[in-house]
Amino acid sequence: MRDAYHDELDALAEQLVEMTRLVGVAITGASTALLDADLALAESVITADDAVDRLRDELDHRAMDLLARQQPVASDLRVIVTTLKISADLERMGDLARHVARAARRRFPDSAVPTGLRSTIVEMSQVAEQLVAKTGSVLVTRDIEAAVQIERDDDEMDRLHRALFTELLDVSAPYSVEVAIDVTLVSRYYERFADHAVAVARRVVYLVTGQHPSELAESV
Amino acid sequence: MRDAYHDELDALAEQLVEMTRLVGVAITGASTALLDADLALAESVITADDAVDRLRDELDHRAMDLLARQQPVASDLRVIVTTLKISADLERMGDLARHVARAARRRFPDSAVPTGLRSTIVEMSQVAEQLVAKTGSVLVTRDIEAAVQIERDDDEMDRLHRALFTELLDVSAPYSVEVAIDVTLVSRYYERFADHAVAVARRVVYLVTGQHPSELAESV
Repeated sequence: MRDAYHDELDALAEQLVEMTRLVGVAITGASTALLDADLALAESVITADDAVDRLRDELDHRAMDLLARQQPVASDLRVIVTTLKISADLERMGDLARHVARAARRRFPDSAVPTGLRSTIVEMSQVAEQLVAKTGSVLVTRDIEAAVQIERDDDEMDRLHRALFTELLDVSAPYSVEVAIDVTLVSRYYERFADHAVAVARRVVYLVTGQHPSELAESV
Repeated sequence: MRDAYHDELDALAEQLVEMTRLVGVAITGASTALLDADLALAESVITADDAVDRLRDELDHRAMDLLARQQPVASDLRVIVTTLKISADLERMGDLARHVARAARRRFPDSAVPTGLRSTIVEMSQVAEQLVAKTGSVLVTRDIEAAVQIERDDDEMDRLHRALFTELLDVSAPYSVEVAIDVTLVSRYYERFADHAVAVARRVVYLVTGQHPSELAESV
């Protein structure tokens, strides 16, 4: 039988999964708002980020409370401190989805993404959605191999980020400075979004194994 | 007389101040490398960031060890958990300084900053240097008023960030897409650098008062 303390640890874990779900909804909505110049959707993503921030605050508060009351050691201590770090990553992913939505709002009724760059941004948004879905599932399953797979998806995001700059610089299809600013920022938001997904995955590896992924690679 | 435990807490605080000092050296070097197209300086900033990362790892390790061995409650617990969060902000500030240095290296022997945008980037670098110096001093003095002042400096950084976009879009002095990409990224790095300084300052306010700055504003 589980005690109240471990029920509280489980509740923390569930809250992380719920944050990940909200961040997934946010990046999907932000990407659609960006690509379809959908103002109402952009506004709703921007507003909805408050819920992610509140969940983070609540989660941090509960984690601190558990640390103070239960004085955990070893793996339980690791779980709680790692939870605090993961909630910070997820909160930041929510901010980045909101930034994408704001970029969409700023150019409305135009799209911030010109036709020629659309397919790369579509790919970036798809990789971002896959990453957050996999992050949520790694948080539940604690599957180390799936966590490592997230790093490979991030390599794909980095490749798209670089490809977009090459496309922007294509002299046969000259883009304006305004487009260059918008697309550079949006691309950077997606890239950072992916970095934080990788950070969460690495923290799960640390949670499960007690080792950081780099140490693990060295010890294998 | 202080016990060994409180000596260890002091050592953590000193390590945060040392990280801040290294981050200050990094942003100063990165800014000079960027503005003067100084490749050797850019390389040294890029290499030096490893020391910041190592300090963060060491600090996190010691903080976790203290949590496990001493089972702190109340304000000591708050100090240790806040230390973990501050070290994450400082580590990120180091990364952002390194990003500025990389932008300088990418365009060498040219400068990534065209003459017309130079003065705004100079101002941004000065605000960044002031912010990190003030952050270091707030970590030592725990002066709440100085911590609040850091938020005002960040407002100035946000103003410069917006001004730079206006300058980039000035049709009477058309810039290339390449310049737009470089300057947008560099400006974003400085802006995020400042955001993390604000985050550190807010955490110090929380450390000292037990309240988040927003709660404090509401309760005044």
